[in-house]
Amino acid sequence: MTLALNVEDLALNVEELSDYLSEVFPEVWEDFAIDALTRDTVNVRLLTDDRHLRPGGTVSGPSMFALADVAVYAMVLARVGRKALAVTTNCSIDFMRKPEANRDLIAQCRLLKLGRALAVGDVLLFSEGSDKPVAHATLTYSIPPRG
Amino acid sequence: MTLALNVEDLALNVEELSDYLSEVFPEVWEDFAIDALTRDTVNVRLLTDDRHLRPGGTVSGPSMFALADVAVYAMVLARVGRKALAVTTNCSIDFMRKPEANRDLIAQCRLLKLGRALAVGDVLLFSEGSDKPVAHATLTYSIPPRG
Amino acid sequence: MTLALNVEDLALNVEELSDYLSEVFPEVWEDFAIDALTRDTVNVRLLTDDRHLRPGGTVSGPSMFALADVAVYAMVLARVGRKALAVTTNCSIDFMRKPEANRDLIAQCRLLKLGRALAVGDVLLFSEGSDKPVAHATLTYSIPPRG
Amino acid sequence: MTLALNVEDLALNVEELSDYLSEVFPEVWEDFAIDALTRDTVNVRLLTDDRHLRPGGTVSGPSMFALADVAVYAMVLARVGRKALAVTTNCSIDFMRKPEANRDLIAQCRLLKLGRALAVGDVLLFSEGSDKPVAHATLTYSIPPRG
Repeated sequence: MTLALNVEDLALNVEELSDYLSEVFPEVWEDFAIDALTRDTVNVRLLTDDRHLRPGGTVSGPSMFALADVAVYAMVLARVGRKALAVTTNCSIDFMRKPEANRDLIAQCRLLKLGRALAVGDVLLFSEGSDKPVAHATLTYSIPPRG
Repeated sequence: MTLALNVEDLALNVEELSDYLSEVFPEVWEDFAIDALTRDTVNVRLLTDDRHLRPGGTVSGPSMFALADVAVYAMVLARVGRKALAVTTNCSIDFMRKPEANRDLIAQCRLLKLGRALAVGDVLLFSEGSDKPVAHATLTYSIPPRG
Repeated sequence: MTLALNVEDLALNVEELSDYLSEVFPEVWEDFAIDALTRDTVNVRLLTDDRHLRPGGTVSGPSMFALADVAVYAMVLARVGRKALAVTTNCSIDFMRKPEANRDLIAQCRLLKLGRALAVGDVLLFSEGSDKPVAHATLTYSIPPRG
Repeated sequence: MTLALNVEDLALNVEELSDYLSEVFPEVWEDFAIDALTRDTVNVRLLTDDRHLRPGGTVSGPSMFALADVAVYAMVLARVGRKALAVTTNCSIDFMRKPEANRDLIAQCRLLKLGRALAVGDVLLFSEGSDKPVAHATLTYSIPPRG
């Protein structure tokens, strides 16, 4: 899939998106940061901390789920703007490798569909510095009618 | 599916299972409790607390994922015993209704397959006292070779 | 989950449902039959034939997918009636055992959610006469606005 | 994800792969063709015919599932060679747009993991000539032990 790099269709830029996420999810968003944003992609970082780890020193499954979920949510908000109240309806996630404990986790999200009622994105998760994905997730968000 | 109620195939009973989970996941397991266990089913409870909630007073997606994941993990351990080091390889979860904030979340897990290498279970999640599921998840665990 | 057995909420009974499916999918529906229908469950049968088999004599993956898809579709139509034009938006399916070649495949479908816009059902597939599921699937249907 | 373009890790080239698929699935494979193959990607084409269509002139869900399944299977075989007997254990598929009836359907598959026991690939499906995906699927294959 060729992804256009223009940003003219974005409703929010990186700064506006970060501000909005800090505002609506103050305690959740402090774990995350946006690395890059285009009209069809966003890279979101999990600032890995002790509370995201499992015994044995690996990032926990719920933390990986949370990162994938936040990445697609950020992508949808970047397109539909801060009025939206989108909710996750489905997530399928494959855990493929063990993440490294002392590195941030990077989500590379692609927006696959942005319809009137449903948005679909997929996400590859990487330990920073590695090119082998630790997990892959696909999420659907339901977008409430506007107006 | 008719589920046999005998427990003779269980490698661990409720107490042994709880003890083992407390031992291997001390900080994680304190959020959970086992309500019931048969050879094919387990009910696991999330002791809902402020840290599981989202603004608006609903249980967060990662907390629901964590409960579903723990429920299938507990089911697999109850059958294969405490030597096993099973890992989640796949989860598909549908979020269907908003959980209530001030109630525990109950996972009703069925073991659908216990093979040599892979186990599959599905889970319905309910806010305690309600019979309408808030989420449904299916998980696959990879079971490492014994010996 | 306790499933109520009353049928008063059904928009179509078994005969009306079969007739409608024959009418809208004439070539597809001839492979299937409805065994049982309640307000929350439907059992649908794949009349297994040579064209559903793979070399080695097992029912093919696409045939199992088709049966799961048809079962949830039939369940949704039984509730919303023949005016509806529902479409599958997501399916997650786990293939757990090899189906037997010379037996019909039975889908046991549960309706988990029937919302205004989305319906979710899950399905266990069995070779007739066996109580070990060969596959489990969860499907989401998008229901277009009425009127 | 940067995908290396070298083919030295391939166990089978396009011709060997096509021959093997024709040999093991003679009736299934005649609907498909391989457009391109690298060590991490394969493009597979569904030669769309009347029997893949639904009333209203769109490619059926089972046909889309079959294409995604075949694409990941071809990818795995290209890497592990013709001795392997891999089986699908899980598929999650999102149907996002209506495919066009009179065009071939193209699967773009990426190999996300090739482990000893499990392989994971994801697939975007496009109607030929369009850059908007009609579906996205992720599949897991179980690879039996060698030797």
